[in-house]
Amino acid sequence: MTVAFVKMHGIGNDFPVFDHTQPGAPTIEQIQAAAVTLCDRRFGIGGDGTISILPSETADFAMRMFNPDGSEAEMCGNGIRCFAKYVYDFGLTTKTELSVETLAGIMVLVLTVEDGKVTQVRVDMGEPRLERAQLPMEGPSGTVLHEPLKIGGELLYITGVSMGNPHIVFFPEQATDELIHRIGPQLENHPSFPKRTNVHAAQVVGRDELVMKIWERGAGPTLACGTGACAVGVAAHLNGLTGRDILIHLPGGDLRIQWGIDNHVYMTGSATLVYHGTIEL
Amino acid sequence: MTVAFVKMHGIGNDFPVFDHTQPGAPTIEQIQAAAVTLCDRRFGIGGDGTISILPSETADFAMRMFNPDGSEAEMCGNGIRCFAKYVYDFGLTTKTELSVETLAGIMVLVLTVEDGKVTQVRVDMGEPRLERAQLPMEGPSGTVLHEPLKIGGELLYITGVSMGNPHIVFFPEQATDELIHRIGPQLENHPSFPKRTNVHAAQVVGRDELVMKIWERGAGPTLACGTGACAVGVAAHLNGLTGRDILIHLPGGDLRIQWGIDNHVYMTGSATLVYHGTIEL
Repeated sequence: MTVAFVKMHGIGNDFPVFDHTQPGAPTIEQIQAAAVTLCDRRFGIGGDGTISILPSETADFAMRMFNPDGSEAEMCGNGIRCFAKYVYDFGLTTKTELSVETLAGIMVLVLTVEDGKVTQVRVDMGEPRLERAQLPMEGPSGTVLHEPLKIGGELLYITGVSMGNPHIVFFPEQATDELIHRIGPQLENHPSFPKRTNVHAAQVVGRDELVMKIWERGAGPTLACGTGACAVGVAAHLNGLTGRDILIHLPGGDLRIQWGIDNHVYMTGSATLVYHGTIEL
Repeated sequence: MTVAFVKMHGIGNDFPVFDHTQPGAPTIEQIQAAAVTLCDRRFGIGGDGTISILPSETADFAMRMFNPDGSEAEMCGNGIRCFAKYVYDFGLTTKTELSVETLAGIMVLVLTVEDGKVTQVRVDMGEPRLERAQLPMEGPSGTVLHEPLKIGGELLYITGVSMGNPHIVFFPEQATDELIHRIGPQLENHPSFPKRTNVHAAQVVGRDELVMKIWERGAGPTLACGTGACAVGVAAHLNGLTGRDILIHLPGGDLRIQWGIDNHVYMTGSATLVYHGTIEL
């Protein structure tokens, strides 16, 4: 069958997007079965995962995502912004506040629209968890805040934030590629982290502005990490380096992180349509 | 402007293909200017280069290719098979023997058609050059045939073949990924090769059948290398390991290499249409 799709990205996290609400659309099982090939960058479309748009009984829409290895992903902050841009820009909804059912629960999105197109999407990413055991990290109970840790010959001061997945943040003078390549794998695999950890080097460039470099658990350096940006925002405020409303420059683009007085972390960023396509499944 | 393209690959070398013979097509200058973005796998379509189909005054068609860095490529054996499949399958020609003008000269192609679609394309890759100075490689004049060379603690027997670019081939018992990762960079940068060299580990699996692993100069391990497969075929025959008509299993797929009595090397392989797309330029 011939299947229509669009290719989208959220600051460099890229996804083939399939709209299952249309007549003649593939089934979710067909997308799942083809996900490995669809995500292959040479033999398929290429992407960090597939995004499927489905109807929902409990929310405005339902989103399902499959990883390049064919497994199902719970949710992705950069992916769900693409989802929101699709459903609005292609007329599936006229609402600018959306609820989306995901495997991680119902997500609430707020859309910024200019000239009839979505330019920015705000995602409620939930509450950060700061207890050491929630990361998890070995050691006494309490938070992991500006805690000294020796990596190789260097002394780092680390802060730990879980956004459902573990993030360790440190604040160097210069957040360089060289630094994250050197420190990232050592921290990821440090014996203090029984489930390993994501690692972020964040450099303060203004009172409410940071540059971050990312080392993702199991993936290495990446262009963007939504939960990681949330963790960096929380960690920066906890360390007294910024307020609660921060612009973060990631390698793939910018995200605004707001840590609300309701303790929820709100992430705002762009989503981009790259091209339209049709492929035989 | 909205530009139509197809995404194709030749055993894993992949290309967005643009047809400039159609009304409303972009100019070649527009494709060149956009090549870096078009080849970006996250912010664009993604590919090892763009392929442009143009009319020619001296051949059936003209092909131009731009690399992911925006520079112009002379020719690509895997790319030109995609070119041939496009012009036949989409009705630009009914000929099954084609001449194509490229920066490397006029290439002659023979198409195999089944059910109205091209399944295989044979490319005349020209004559191999066997003189050491043509590689170039340091040392006395003559060929580089089963020549001992010490790499790290290992003694390799190497054969050198230029197909316009330099290739060094050796024939291990097992052509493993580990081996090519270990030997490839050491041979590529060995002081014997003033312009560095491509490196291929070729394992004999039958009288006329080889498995090869590739280390491309400046690129590292790749799925396919057309000129490298030609060099492996020539080197295998020169070493008395095979005849002149050989099936080679590359990581991305199979190529048949025939070293003709006219001294030309003929490469035959598949080309695959992955999807159709439209993108804003």
